Amino acid sequence: MKAIVKTGPNQGAVQKETPTPTPGPREVLIEVKAAAICGTDVHYYFWNSAAENFSKKFGLTFPFTLGHEVCGTIIELGSEVTTLKVGQKISVETHIPCGECYHCKTGEAHNCQNMKIYGTSYNGCFSDYALVPESVAFPLPDSISFEEGSLFEPAGVAMRAIEESRIEAGDTVVIFGSGAIGLLAMMIAKAVGAGKIIAVDIDDYKLSLAKKYADVTINSLEEDHVSIILEHTKVRRGADVIIEMSGSPLVYKTMFDCLRLEGRVVTVGHPAGEVSINITQNVNTKGASIKGLFGRRLWSTWHSLLSLVENGRINLLDVVTHTFPFEEFEQAFEQTKKAGKILFVRDEHKA
Amino acid sequence: MKAIVKTGPNQGAVQKETPTPTPGPREVLIEVKAAAICGTDVHYYFWNSAAENFSKKFGLTFPFTLGHEVCGTIIELGSEVTTLKVGQKISVETHIPCGECYHCKTGEAHNCQNMKIYGTSYNGCFSDYALVPESVAFPLPDSISFEEGSLFEPAGVAMRAIEESRIEAGDTVVIFGSGAIGLLAMMIAKAVGAGKIIAVDIDDYKLSLAKKYADVTINSLEEDHVSIILEHTKVRRGADVIIEMSGSPLVYKTMFDCLRLEGRVVTVGHPAGEVSINITQNVNTKGASIKGLFGRRLWSTWHSLLSLVENGRINLLDVVTHTFPFEEFEQAFEQTKKAGKILFVRDEHKA
Amino acid sequence: MKAIVKTGPNQGAVQKETPTPTPGPREVLIEVKAAAICGTDVHYYFWNSAAENFSKKFGLTFPFTLGHEVCGTIIELGSEVTTLKVGQKISVETHIPCGECYHCKTGEAHNCQNMKIYGTSYNGCFSDYALVPESVAFPLPDSISFEEGSLFEPAGVAMRAIEESRIEAGDTVVIFGSGAIGLLAMMIAKAVGAGKIIAVDIDDYKLSLAKKYADVTINSLEEDHVSIILEHTKVRRGADVIIEMSGSPLVYKTMFDCLRLEGRVVTVGHPAGEVSINITQNVNTKGASIKGLFGRRLWSTWHSLLSLVENGRINLLDVVTHTFPFEEFEQAFEQTKKAGKILFVRDEHKA
Amino acid sequence: MKAIVKTGPNQGAVQKETPTPTPGPREVLIEVKAAAICGTDVHYYFWNSAAENFSKKFGLTFPFTLGHEVCGTIIELGSEVTTLKVGQKISVETHIPCGECYHCKTGEAHNCQNMKIYGTSYNGCFSDYALVPESVAFPLPDSISFEEGSLFEPAGVAMRAIEESRIEAGDTVVIFGSGAIGLLAMMIAKAVGAGKIIAVDIDDYKLSLAKKYADVTINSLEEDHVSIILEHTKVRRGADVIIEMSGSPLVYKTMFDCLRLEGRVVTVGHPAGEVSINITQNVNTKGASIKGLFGRRLWSTWHSLLSLVENGRINLLDVVTHTFPFEEFEQAFEQTKKAGKILFVRDEHKA
Repeated sequence: MKAIVKTGPNQGAVQKETPTPTPGPREVLIEVKAAAICGTDVHYYFWNSAAENFSKKFGLTFPFTLGHEVCGTIIELGSEVTTLKVGQKISVETHIPCGECYHCKTGEAHNCQNMKIYGTSYNGCFSDYALVPESVAFPLPDSISFEEGSLFEPAGVAMRAIEESRIEAGDTVVIFGSGAIGLLAMMIAKAVGAGKIIAVDIDDYKLSLAKKYADVTINSLEEDHVSIILEHTKVRRGADVIIEMSGSPLVYKTMFDCLRLEGRVVTVGHPAGEVSINITQNVNTKGASIKGLFGRRLWSTWHSLLSLVENGRINLLDVVTHTFPFEEFEQAFEQTKKAGKILFVRDEHKA
Repeated sequence: MKAIVKTGPNQGAVQKETPTPTPGPREVLIEVKAAAICGTDVHYYFWNSAAENFSKKFGLTFPFTLGHEVCGTIIELGSEVTTLKVGQKISVETHIPCGECYHCKTGEAHNCQNMKIYGTSYNGCFSDYALVPESVAFPLPDSISFEEGSLFEPAGVAMRAIEESRIEAGDTVVIFGSGAIGLLAMMIAKAVGAGKIIAVDIDDYKLSLAKKYADVTINSLEEDHVSIILEHTKVRRGADVIIEMSGSPLVYKTMFDCLRLEGRVVTVGHPAGEVSINITQNVNTKGASIKGLFGRRLWSTWHSLLSLVENGRINLLDVVTHTFPFEEFEQAFEQTKKAGKILFVRDEHKA
Repeated sequence: MKAIVKTGPNQGAVQKETPTPTPGPREVLIEVKAAAICGTDVHYYFWNSAAENFSKKFGLTFPFTLGHEVCGTIIELGSEVTTLKVGQKISVETHIPCGECYHCKTGEAHNCQNMKIYGTSYNGCFSDYALVPESVAFPLPDSISFEEGSLFEPAGVAMRAIEESRIEAGDTVVIFGSGAIGLLAMMIAKAVGAGKIIAVDIDDYKLSLAKKYADVTINSLEEDHVSIILEHTKVRRGADVIIEMSGSPLVYKTMFDCLRLEGRVVTVGHPAGEVSINITQNVNTKGASIKGLFGRRLWSTWHSLLSLVENGRINLLDVVTHTFPFEEFEQAFEQTKKAGKILFVRDEHKA
Repeated sequence: MKAIVKTGPNQGAVQKETPTPTPGPREVLIEVKAAAICGTDVHYYFWNSAAENFSKKFGLTFPFTLGHEVCGTIIELGSEVTTLKVGQKISVETHIPCGECYHCKTGEAHNCQNMKIYGTSYNGCFSDYALVPESVAFPLPDSISFEEGSLFEPAGVAMRAIEESRIEAGDTVVIFGSGAIGLLAMMIAKAVGAGKIIAVDIDDYKLSLAKKYADVTINSLEEDHVSIILEHTKVRRGADVIIEMSGSPLVYKTMFDCLRLEGRVVTVGHPAGEVSINITQNVNTKGASIKGLFGRRLWSTWHSLLSLVENGRINLLDVVTHTFPFEEFEQAFEQTKKAGKILFVRDEHKA
């Protein structure tokens, strides 16, 4: 089979012929139908410092196949698999929990003490076929397309951010960062009853995509986002909820000025290095709460998302701006510099 | 001024000339612009056993002016009023809290130990002018019409029911009873991210109104609602949330069969008499939770609702099926037998 | 080995020699060190209508070994067991979840859709050795004695009741029923910050045991518990929390009169038949919430309990009033008519 | 009357004769019986940069009377006071809410948009008599002593910290800072079911006071608190809850290393300047939550505390190490350098 493989800690990747793998006892083999490019894949492809850090933390070894946002059909079962069937359509949870630690045993498997990462500490999915551990397969009904299915993992991050933000009906929600996850968060915030959605970014292209979901979009290089947000929240004097999805340390300089007293911040973007926070003014006397997150709750986030999609409350494909076959992966990775979400779709699926 | 007055514990009411009242120290006088008919008004008008019970509990004395769902403009302030201004548009919270008891002091004023009821223990609003205690006036921005403003109180019951149901994104919500509050609950459930909304009633006219918001409507006299609901919830085996707004004791016979394990029930409708519940089977081993409610949270429910309306997430006027001038009140009360929400709108406002 | 076996749907049981079982692939064999008698065992022993209902619901077949509250040492592992070791001290969760259903997959395994019950649909533990499914073994540290370990399952019901009651510091907690679970609930309520604990029962012996934990004990046959409770809660006008552990339908006649507005009820006791509730008065206008429960959360309830015991916050053995060897099971079951908690302790362990 | 007065922005204060004030319409005059020294008083007394910042933020003007933690008896009512009586024993909430803003109207008066501060923007209580706004008087029952009553305000900060930490039964709680509020937080954490309480400070005297409540005390100058805490939390790999009460920026360097995945941090101490936080590692991938707070919830925190004290669950006087008459205020302020909580008690009260 062909796979997009990373052979060392340097820029780029190669598509090459590799043996189709055989599932271990608790793995399944899927035929990959659609896969999406994540920011992590981009880090790995161009191999920057985020790639260095993340690969070290989660035990990446070369060569490995890129990709982890995927949907496909099961074509072979490992010998001890009991909960899946050949022919099932599945999406894949990237965070592979151990199942044994305190967190796994008490409903916090999403933050397992011994987490492995699909596409980092485990081979990825930008290939014709891919192995998936039984424990992280999420079966999808027929009504969900392969393309939609490949977006459940990233949309799950947005869904989880919304869950953790505890939005109350009518709340003003400010989202910093209008990348694909930011767009999905806006889409879901609207679906769950946010009152006003305000998107802040420094990239006009991204903000043009955000206009589909946000009531207000602000380019913070050109406009004073703090005073615009305060103008939109005169009664409550600041946003009820802020979701930080840009990963920019600069955001932390003004973010709390946009937040009302007793407001809630959810941080998703990973700033490089440390950020400075005035605890006295911005956390204590403000009464702020801050919640960090990493991935989806198992499996409640997935089920919530599935239900929103199945019942037509949201359309995940709305954030897809480009589609490529695997063969054009170099063009696809270049395109990430100006894109919403980019999908790989396999030829035979299209035909 | 003219007022629709109830002179004793019997059917009907009269519209008659009465002196325009003067506000006490902490009251304001409003010019009534729009008012809506509530089920309680209907009970009072036709004077049934519910009227007997409710009027006793909350200290009604004759004669009194009917009505409590209202929007108008302040035209005179009491001598000690500090938080309101002449010319303001206000809606009115019906539940008048004492401000002093344990509940009022700890954020539970919505369930004050010494509650008085506007339109029952306090004169109502089906009149050209009406007194309103300063403490229960809710100022509205210009963007909200008088008609919308008169619907905040009943819509607030629906909003509170949704709040207490703790809907998670994608949850299946079953609403028993498709009266005006039921319709508003469906509208709001949809706005805050319910996955599938199922309306159950025994009246085809009401169900025809419900079709606007519900994904599934069931006439439980004609179809087996339990099996239809279970058919729609195969994975979770029952609804996540049930909201009881019919007040029918019969609903309690089958309601829990429609609920999934660890599901949530919110009861709003007031059944006459007692209902029988199998605690062992339907509450304990089912892991069900039940929450009863009466009115709106002060003032968070009002603010949530205001924001949803202001930001165009919901349109309250959608549930209004009939509009009358006060003069046609007899026809209006007759119409309640087949209607969504009915509004009184004053002539001078229309002109 | 010897086992206390129930051979048919009639009164009594026999202790008889049976083959020591061999663990299946995902089971372990334990040497039983201590076991406790649960109300369910009593129902089964005397074979009453509760036994009929429960055995039908959860698929009991004869002959079967009684008992499910147990602590012992693992002496043999099934071939596929990966998470346990020979020599480990374990207690056992009675509710055996399937691991596959919606509830198991979303952190609600405590209410699995396909629950099996240890000691009912699975053989029990009143025997020298017993099989335990790997999935329901809870390893205990050395600091916990076998006797304490055998009480984790019932204490877990009390712990869960306290969890679900969402006690806030200083809350007045009324517990109906001073059986062993009631006593444990009082002990834990005190440990987690209840202000005043009030025990209500109709049995003076039980109330004499309750005096150790409760600030107030009331025999409701002799005193007017409603007015006594209201006297003790003058500011809040009723208890903040009521925990129903008696299973008596009569309690439902007055229980809500003891509850403050917006108070919380947790139901644990299983009334025979249905109870009548005035929804309008006792649930809706009262703003009450009711939560039913069945068993422990997996495994957070167990971990909370373990920590309270390990850190000396509670002493489970405090509720044990009698200890017997298995040989004296007939006497032990007779004693249940007047007892706190009764333990079986094996001779060899004592020696 | 005599009052301890601050005449300008410099070190020290004077006790001098001033006219006994007359209550405004919504104020009462109390005879001060006991008062406690807060850290803010110490800042003001020695006039450091914290005094500069806080006095500016909340509008302090000279001269003003120091002190805000107080208990006394009402001896005169303002003309419009309706909820208090002469002779009542009251304690005083320091944070004076406006009653009109969004936060005041929606149950978040503890974080009023227009907050005034008793003893800063309003004259204080280190005087024979003091004015108190009706809106912040908290009546106490006879069973509470004046000394206890003067500690409700600071104990309320500890109580609120515990509330916000959402301690679950058995949780390991680490408290940085063993000053008076830290000690009170330990006392309350224990009362509400913390499993293990670990106190970290750099002052052996303070740690010697902490030993009364903490299971483990660590001088972080002498011992590696991170590894000790991890040693005590092997299963969960870190504390469940961290409460930051030291105000030291240094604590932020290691605090998150002591926290388990998905753990909760509550920040109460006010660090001078900004602190650096690695969001990626310590908040996002750790799944941490952080909640800042400032003061007590109105009035639920006060009621919880009152109930714990009334029912003997905690003894606030336990943290008092020194008592002085007002005359010895200079000695008292010197003593704050080595003390738990210091009280002023008036002579006539003692006699």
